[in-house]
Formats: sequence, C-alpha cells, structure tokens
Amino acid sequence: MHYFERTKVRDALRAEKPQEDVIILGWVRTKRVSKNVAFLEVNDGSTLANLQLVLEPDKFPILDEVNTGTSIKATGDLVESKGGKQAWEVQVKTLEIIGHCPQDYPLQKKRHSFEFLREIAHIRPRTNTFGVVNRFRSKMAYAVHKFFQERGFYYVHTPIITASDCEGAGEMFRVTTFDLNKVPMTDGHVDFRQDFFGQETSLTVSGQLEAELLATAIGDVYTFGPTFRAENSNTSRHLAEFWMIEPEMAFCDLEENMKIIEEFLKYLCQYALDNCQEEMQFFNKWIDKTHTRIQTLEEIVNSDFGVITYTEAIEILKKADRKFEFPVEWGLDLQSEHERYLTEEYFKRPMMVIDYPKDIKAFYMRLNDDNKTVRAVDVLVPQVGEIVGGSQREERLDKLIQRMEELGMDIEGMQWYLDIRRWGSVPHSGFGLGFERILMYMSGISNIRDVIPFPRTPGNAKF
Amino acid sequence: MHYFERTKVRDALRAEKPQEDVIILGWVRTKRVSKNVAFLEVNDGSTLANLQLVLEPDKFPILDEVNTGTSIKATGDLVESKGGKQAWEVQVKTLEIIGHCPQDYPLQKKRHSFEFLREIAHIRPRTNTFGVVNRFRSKMAYAVHKFFQERGFYYVHTPIITASDCEGAGEMFRVTTFDLNKVPMTDGHVDFRQDFFGQETSLTVSGQLEAELLATAIGDVYTFGPTFRAENSNTSRHLAEFWMIEPEMAFCDLEENMKIIEEFLKYLCQYALDNCQEEMQFFNKWIDKTHTRIQTLEEIVNSDFGVITYTEAIEILKKADRKFEFPVEWGLDLQSEHERYLTEEYFKRPMMVIDYPKDIKAFYMRLNDDNKTVRAVDVLVPQVGEIVGGSQREERLDKLIQRMEELGMDIEGMQWYLDIRRWGSVPHSGFGLGFERILMYMSGISNIRDVIPFPRTPGNAKF
Repeated sequence: MHYFERTKVRDALRAEKPQEDVIILGWVRTKRVSKNVAFLEVNDGSTLANLQLVLEPDKFPILDEVNTGTSIKATGDLVESKGGKQAWEVQVKTLEIIGHCPQDYPLQKKRHSFEFLREIAHIRPRTNTFGVVNRFRSKMAYAVHKFFQERGFYYVHTPIITASDCEGAGEMFRVTTFDLNKVPMTDGHVDFRQDFFGQETSLTVSGQLEAELLATAIGDVYTFGPTFRAENSNTSRHLAEFWMIEPEMAFCDLEENMKIIEEFLKYLCQYALDNCQEEMQFFNKWIDKTHTRIQTLEEIVNSDFGVITYTEAIEILKKADRKFEFPVEWGLDLQSEHERYLTEEYFKRPMMVIDYPKDIKAFYMRLNDDNKTVRAVDVLVPQVGEIVGGSQREERLDKLIQRMEELGMDIEGMQWYLDIRRWGSVPHSGFGLGFERILMYMSGISNIRDVIPFPRTPGNAKF
Repeated sequence: MHYFERTKVRDALRAEKPQEDVIILGWVRTKRVSKNVAFLEVNDGSTLANLQLVLEPDKFPILDEVNTGTSIKATGDLVESKGGKQAWEVQVKTLEIIGHCPQDYPLQKKRHSFEFLREIAHIRPRTNTFGVVNRFRSKMAYAVHKFFQERGFYYVHTPIITASDCEGAGEMFRVTTFDLNKVPMTDGHVDFRQDFFGQETSLTVSGQLEAELLATAIGDVYTFGPTFRAENSNTSRHLAEFWMIEPEMAFCDLEENMKIIEEFLKYLCQYALDNCQEEMQFFNKWIDKTHTRIQTLEEIVNSDFGVITYTEAIEILKKADRKFEFPVEWGLDLQSEHERYLTEEYFKRPMMVIDYPKDIKAFYMRLNDDNKTVRAVDVLVPQVGEIVGGSQREERLDKLIQRMEELGMDIEGMQWYLDIRRWGSVPHSGFGLGFERILMYMSGISNIRDVIPFPRTPGNAKF
C-alpha cells in the first residue's frame, strides 16, 4: 500500500526542494477540470492544508470518476507551484482510485453548521474544522504529559469503576452486570452481593482520592483520564463523559499549589503558540469572531495571576456598579457572571480566589483557623470564569473525620482514605482541570460537544 | 511547606558536589540509633533508593518519636558518605516531624507477600516494589505517547460509554442511571428510552471502531485509554478494567501494520533499557527468578520477528513431538501452550502468526481471497505467548456487510461504521496492546493485579 514510501501532505508542503516520483495517498477535497489542465486538492489528514495535484485531463479519463471524498493514490513530481496559493504542487504521472465516493457523500463543498456536523460525528473529522480540532486535542494532550513528566511527576491510572463517591454529589452512573429485566432482590432491596463486584459500583467522578493515595507514596503524580457525571444538563458546557487532569503533590501547600497551576496554564498556552501555529491561526481566523484568540493566549502567558480571598471577592461584588442576576452574599457560591466581572472587568487579568466558605466546597479541603473557610482555590480567566479548581487537602485526621461526620458521610467505608492521614500524614495539594474546558478556552469553540470526538450527553451515545 | 526549595531524594543521590543547607521532605523507612550516631533512611517516592540522614542522637530527643512511616522535614548539609552503600548523605542540622506514624502501620520493616499487599492496595505504593512498579508504569505510558507523537500519530479519545459492541463478545458492563430497585418496564421489557442516554449503553471493550473513523479522516491515530470486560475470570492475567493502546493507520495494509508493531515493541523495550535502568535492575534482581529480565528485553530489541501463517503453525504443531493439553486442529484457536511452543521452542524468537480462520477472528478483519482466512496477525513472544493482536480491516463495503449478515449482526445500528467504507474507503490496519500485559512482560511480574494501582476483578472494586 506504500504506507512507508508515500509522502504525507504535511511533509510535501514543507519540502525544501523539488522531489521526483513522490507517492501521495489521500482524499480528494475538490476537483477543477478545464480543457487543458485539471487540479485535485488532496488531503490526508496530516495537516489542514491540501496538496494540489496537477494533471493533463486528456491523459486521465479516470478523472470522471473522481469526486469530492474519493480516495486516491497518485505519483508524480513535487515541484514549485506556479499558482500563488501554495508553494508546492505535484505534476501527476499516475492516478489510481482507491475508493469511490458517490454523490450522496454528506460533506460536499460547502460550509456545514456545527449542529449538522454533530449529527454525523463519525464523518466530521474529515472537515477542516474538526481535522484541526482533533489534531489540536492530540497535541495539547501530549503537552499535558510533557509538562508533568519533565517535572518529575508520575502519571497514574486511577480506577474508572469505583465503589466510592468523591464529591458526594450523587450524580453518578451505575455500573452493573445485572440483567435489568430481573434484578435480584433480597428483602425488597437490590442484592448487590450478587453483582459483578459484590457491591454497588459507579463510574468515577474524579480520580483525586486515589491520586492522594499515590501522591503520599511516590510524591508528585497526575491523572489524565475519563470522568463521568450523570447530570441531566443539556448545556454547551457539560458532558456526561469528559477527560480530566488531576495533579496531586505531597509536601505541598496551597500557595505552592497555586504556583504550579499558574505555571501549568502558562505552559499550555505557550505550547499552543509554539507548536500549534496552524491550529491557532485557524481558530483565530475562523472560530473566534473577535479574532483575538492568539492574543488571549499571549495575555495569559504574560500576565501575573492575581490573588484575592473569597471574602474580598464578595466585598468587591457587593460594591460593584452592576446588577447581577444571582445574589451576592457571603456563603453563596460565585456564579459565572460574578467570576467574569472579577477577572474581566475589575482586575482585567487571571485571578485566583482562595479561602471559600467550607459549606460550598468539598469535604476534603483543609479547614482554615477561622473554622469557616477552607484552603480552596478557583482560577478565573476572562471570557470563561472558573477554569481550574484546587485545594490543599485536609491532612489532619481528627479534623477530617469531624468534617465527614458533620456531612453524614460513610466514614467506615472511607477508612482507606483516612489511613494516609493515620500513618505519616503530610500536607498535600492538588487541582483539577477539565481537558475539554481548556480546549474550548484555547480554541474559542463555544460548545463542548465540538472539542471531543464523540460527545456523550443526555439522550446521546451515538457512535 | 518548602515544596520548591527542598531537594528531592532522587536529585540528592545524583548530586555532583556537596551542598549546604538542603531541605529534605520524606518518609522514614528505617531508623538506627546507637550511642553516638543515628541514621534515618528517608524516601520521598521520587526514586527507589533512600537518602541517609545522619544525626547526633543527643541533640535530637525527637528521634524517640520517629518510627518507620513517620513523615519528616530535615535540613542539613549534603556531603559525601563515609559508608559504602551510598554516595551521598545528609548531616542533619534540624529535624521536624510532619506526621507521626503509630506502630500499627502495616508496612513495618519486613517483606510482605504480594497477596497481603493487594489487600492494602492503598498503602502498597509506599513499598519498594510498588514504588518501582508505579514509576515504571508512568515512564512506559509516556514512552507510548512519545513513540506515536514523534511519528505523526494523533492521540484520540474514543468514547468509554458506548451503545455498540465491538467484539460482539457480549461480556460488557451495563451503564445506567436507573434506580435498580424500580427499573421502568414497558410491555414486560426494560424501557431504555427512559434511561440517561435513551438507549441501552455499556462500557467499551475497545476503541477500535471509533479509531477507524478518525484514522480514515486524519490519518494515523492511536488510543490509550481504559477498556472493560465483564468476564467472570479470576485469573492472574485478567482484569475487568484495564488500559489499552490501539493504533489505527489509514492507507496501511497488514504487512505495513506488522512493521509498525515490531518497531513499537522494540521501541518500548529499548526505552525501558535506556530510561528505566533503576526499575529494570530491580525487576531483574528481585522479581524475575531467573534474573534474565534485562536480557529478555535486549533479545526483543535485537531479534528479527518471524512470520508464519496460521496454517503453517498448525502443521508445525501437529508434527511436534509434544503432548498438548488442548487439541491442534485447523479452525481451532491457538492456546497459550501452542503459542509458547512456537515462539519459545520451535522458532526461539518473537513470531507473527497471520491469516487466521475467519471464524475465530472478529468480523471486521479483511477476508483473504481463499474466503476462509482473514488478514489477522497475532504477535507471540517467549514466556507469554500472544502479546499483540492486529489486523487489516475489511474496507470493502459488500464483503463487510456480507460477513456481518453471516454473523447475524445489527447492520442497521452499525451504519456509521459502514459509512467509512461507503465514501472514499481506504485500506487501513491497526492493532491492540494491553498496557498491563506489556508491563507484566517487561517487569516479569506474574499477576496482572500487581501492575495496575487499583485492580478491578470479580468481587473487588475496593479503593
């Protein structure tokens, strides 16, 4: 099939000198035929741009069978292009159809709405936009690994199927091998002892608790894996299945955690600017209506993230000359409109808000001496609001048990989590970043269903 | 907390010159106190070896409270060690207990069985063996990404929750938000329209089908994510949840696929030899009873993988001067004893067996012209048997539909999979590698539950 001998389109377009007898394998995007010359624009998914193939129509009657979407093999000479649009083109010597493409192919040469493309998510990676998105996603995933690996963090695979509930949120998918037509019951209740794992199990909402176990053994770790929320929210910002990055560091307090968060976010932005120029230019031109996407990333890289407490944030919001939809009151969570006011209008830079009331944060966050607030941090960025949430974890066994009791949690079932506070407990901290959220932010794509290949949302598990 | 200022044990042990006033944060592994001198062996998870702290016992009455497992902060001077065992040690100036460790700590200074450690999987990463295993797992996961990214492959996240069944195996975990106490029924059957996704859904057994969609759009892709099998098999080689690597290449036939498989396996072995010396030496000394683990990897790197057809393999096995437990007959699958005979005894090198009978392989494999066999490849390595399975995929729409009909598959529900054969179909190929299987092979660890942090097996979803 000439997999190894062919020249990928990306490499052809970056050629430094002409080359005879290259082999091109790809899909035809457009065909233009005139009396004396024919042009095929060919793409093989390696890059956004197409490679132009130039043919003499008389010599290639097979051109009649070539449509948009047809897969072909061509051989010819890579030469400097006479047209202005591209540097290189191929003067074709042989042309072969690999796979025909009938006219019912849904991706004819016109622009399709994102809504329509979501319906054909199995085909949309063949479009310019979703080719770019998928390549960008891959490069940024690698950037995540590079950042942590180069800093001595260890990548850990925390379990997907779990018998515990990290956030206490309850919005979890059940996992079972029961035949749902006849669930075994004992004394009027489901008999989970007969299920595959001998107990009730769910899909994880976070790998954090297990990451803590590993951090307090091998130091600095990070997870990067799928997490799940069975929330019935059909919004442009929620998925039932999404990928999370959750670093966890032993011997690390909140201030140090915040430094790592800032360094990480800046690294991702700089990485995109350096290594995803094609993708960033595409987003800047075609996705971001204000054409400021590149500028936004540069601003993140060059900004100093500010720090305020939640209490200070509430004071600022109360004094704001602004009518908010949601109430501003100490003890209530900040809404997106509040977060955006703080970062976009008041401070005009990324902000870290710390020390939130304990009652609006998770049980595992470290209690401050005021007994009212916890060592939480939310990172707010312009245009989005919260993009990262983190905290220093409660490492004091008695305080943690007390908090779990207050919340009526299952302490007996969480002994494994308490054990790391029992034996050689250490201050430790971590944070969570939704991978799709950062991809949306960096690309300017406004619907989360467009930054993951096959989105899972209420009523939709297609493909 | 001095997260940034401290010196990690790994870096201290690799020092090039003495250094005054280092900060060490870690857990005490052992304490030895004599009249004039005390030694603390401290580990922080960054590496296998401990750092020796040297103290004058008179000056540190706090030593009485230091046990195995206690977390400490020490400051002092990093100096060349006078003892023979280590190059560097710290002459301690200050010592502080961060977290006490009572005597009920289960990891006292003795060897524990792997069975016992599996019961305390939340604590076992603190042992030498499981520290090494977790660091090795992280480094090899990164090697997987490096291999593919450096070759222009794109990392794709295929869905975990799925409405389709790749292998037709049926051994899948159901995913639901139904209250199992009262599953909604209509006409005597479960009404999945009322479930979260509006249809029956499961945990994926493979990302391959979706990877094919992406490969036939953006070229070369790979998945690396969790997959699930609800098989009730309590063996040392099976997990209900495990991580798979599934590359998929467009314009690639079986022979080219086989070259990539061989290059990939050799890369992983060479990467471990180059970048995981500490781990490989540990495995060679403490895990592999024959102490040939490093040699095994070197042999893989230096071998030429052989190729035979399944039919040839059957002939060899029939002539073998050997009593097999399972029958050898054309049309029956090869068992582990057969595979090991071929690779270990007959050929004495890694072997690729191709062209298996279609009835023992998956529906999507490309039919050969004999109409009996398919373009499958299994890679066999000594000591293990099969380690990789791959194939060229059936890219001919009519042949694929015919095969699916023969097998009574749901063709209507699989139109999305057929569509990529409908519009610009291309030869494409791929393979699957169980990440835990390769870790077992490379480390010599014989139970798969010991190469993943929190194993999921029948009856066990702890932590």
